[in-house]
Amino acid sequence: MSHDARVDALDGLLKEAGLDAVLATKDASIAYLTGFWGLQMERFFGVTVRKGGTGALIAPSLDRDSVGQAPTGLDKALYDAAKTNGLPTLHDTLKGAKRIGVEEDHLIWARSKALQEAGYELVPASDLIMELRAAKDAEEIAAVKHACAQIIEIYEDLWANLQVGESEIDVNARVAYALARRGGSNPGPHILFGAHSGDPHGSPGERTLQAGDVIVADISAQFDGYWGDMTRCAYAGTPSDWAVKAWDVVKEAYDDAVAATRVGNTARDVDAAQRVVVEAHPEIGACLHGAGHAIGTEIHEPPFLVATSEIPLREGMIFTVEPGIYHSEIGGIRLEDDILVTADGPVNLSPAPLDLRVL
Amino acid sequence: MSHDARVDALDGLLKEAGLDAVLATKDASIAYLTGFWGLQMERFFGVTVRKGGTGALIAPSLDRDSVGQAPTGLDKALYDAAKTNGLPTLHDTLKGAKRIGVEEDHLIWARSKALQEAGYELVPASDLIMELRAAKDAEEIAAVKHACAQIIEIYEDLWANLQVGESEIDVNARVAYALARRGGSNPGPHILFGAHSGDPHGSPGERTLQAGDVIVADISAQFDGYWGDMTRCAYAGTPSDWAVKAWDVVKEAYDDAVAATRVGNTARDVDAAQRVVVEAHPEIGACLHGAGHAIGTEIHEPPFLVATSEIPLREGMIFTVEPGIYHSEIGGIRLEDDILVTADGPVNLSPAPLDLRVL
Repeated sequence: MSHDARVDALDGLLKEAGLDAVLATKDASIAYLTGFWGLQMERFFGVTVRKGGTGALIAPSLDRDSVGQAPTGLDKALYDAAKTNGLPTLHDTLKGAKRIGVEEDHLIWARSKALQEAGYELVPASDLIMELRAAKDAEEIAAVKHACAQIIEIYEDLWANLQVGESEIDVNARVAYALARRGGSNPGPHILFGAHSGDPHGSPGERTLQAGDVIVADISAQFDGYWGDMTRCAYAGTPSDWAVKAWDVVKEAYDDAVAATRVGNTARDVDAAQRVVVEAHPEIGACLHGAGHAIGTEIHEPPFLVATSEIPLREGMIFTVEPGIYHSEIGGIRLEDDILVTADGPVNLSPAPLDLRVL
Repeated sequence: MSHDARVDALDGLLKEAGLDAVLATKDASIAYLTGFWGLQMERFFGVTVRKGGTGALIAPSLDRDSVGQAPTGLDKALYDAAKTNGLPTLHDTLKGAKRIGVEEDHLIWARSKALQEAGYELVPASDLIMELRAAKDAEEIAAVKHACAQIIEIYEDLWANLQVGESEIDVNARVAYALARRGGSNPGPHILFGAHSGDPHGSPGERTLQAGDVIVADISAQFDGYWGDMTRCAYAGTPSDWAVKAWDVVKEAYDDAVAATRVGNTARDVDAAQRVVVEAHPEIGACLHGAGHAIGTEIHEPPFLVATSEIPLREGMIFTVEPGIYHSEIGGIRLEDDILVTADGPVNLSPAPLDLRVL
């Protein structure tokens, strides 16, 4: 679907939502609607879509060249970020629209206050925008699959070259380099060794790989705007009993959660499928997170596969399914693939061996 | 200053600000107050400091190991992000405080609404927190200087190895790898060739370096929590008249802006110093951005050196000073150093030759 067709589809949702316009501010939503990827930092970027499908891409003049090339039929409204905060330009593009849907999980409080003080009525509209973004078309599905194919090749390099004695910093740097050389943006390897892998969000450090370490290798990157995100595990030497059992538990949780990633289920059904398996094994480790998250132009995007979400799964949604089990003193095991919801059930967009690789 | 001493200093500002407590939510503010670096994504993280200097670090249980190791005397309050959104835990740590300072340039609208609906009165407090963060102590200054020293060495490698025919993607990947190998987090090389360098926020692509190209090499990374951020330029072959003139203009703007980075001036004085020079040369290119931004635990942090800011410069502030001139069809020139404000005037924390390097 072209970017302009997405704008038209969004316009089609405004009337029922009772909105005069939508203001999208997330990088990924802006890119989805216009093809433009910005670098926000402290500056204001947005896309306005008014009823009727007109609107504008608003960005600092700093980004004039990339904005000029953006494949969108919307107006392009640039402002000088060294002289204004961009809100006067936003005001101009709203052309009298008053009831504005905004991305409530991205818009900062300061800007929401400024808009309300200027007389706008703000309405949460993340769900409205995600209603479009969540269901991927064939081209988007192919893009996620392509990103995963790049990552699958990176795993082969990783396992072929990883040596006892190498530090987490070095192996993560090497994998990030390989991803970037392939054109991957925002390469996000997160490869941890031994007990450190029991901290799912630990920062790669000076720790070196030792014989007897489990290895959790989470690898993600964005190719042509779409993310792939996978996790595989390995063992330096003959796997310990703990590692074998942990892998068996997580593989069972993975199989059940993938099977649950289907139309008719809600997000929490997928979480429940992995949780019941992992939580039955406190002697091995803890269940520290939900089953996964949607993925597309953002690495983590709604819906999230957590116990609090009753969002129904729809055709075209793509989720990471990534159960894990974690023991702070021993390590972790996590298995992660990117799963497409289809009318015929789940389809794995990142098919590659899940086994506990022995190094 | 220890993390707990910073909490005490923040507590010392609460009474005058009429606040019962502060809620810090930026990664960099959380790290500043507690030593803990999180990975927020969609999950809630925060630090509460109540009057009296008590409070808590709030994070998902996913981060339990890193939270456990955080060098803070504050309470540590974990919640299961697969089951709650963290706000009930935040509520517990506020212990009846009602008038809460928040980082209005970070807190998302959805959370601000939820807090207001729960009966809290929110007050913008970014300036309050930045009053502390902005003035760096000796240890922080040394950390920024160390980060810059790493980047200075990277430039020597870059200029020694960059060859005509190499693509932007490849050279950026190589520099990111070199930064990461040295322990740099979030390595951010942004190296563009020829006309593409006329787009200060262009994305590195397949374009290869050609004889006659100008090269703008912006390199940043975070070491031990603190950022360095520099820009140098080069030319593939004998520099064109345009490049020589553009460099002369930007060097004059740089000298004047650095000289203006002193106590007694405001942020906009520094911007004005570079702007008047660059804007006098429209035949060479455009002035597309302000003079720079503060730098520390964030790569871009307030105050920003822009025409709209009357914030006075204080001892211990560190700013990038980075004037540039940009021509969409020819290219850009930018020179950037990290400048410390002292009682005795500006001190360059990233001293290295500024000349237009000839390759």
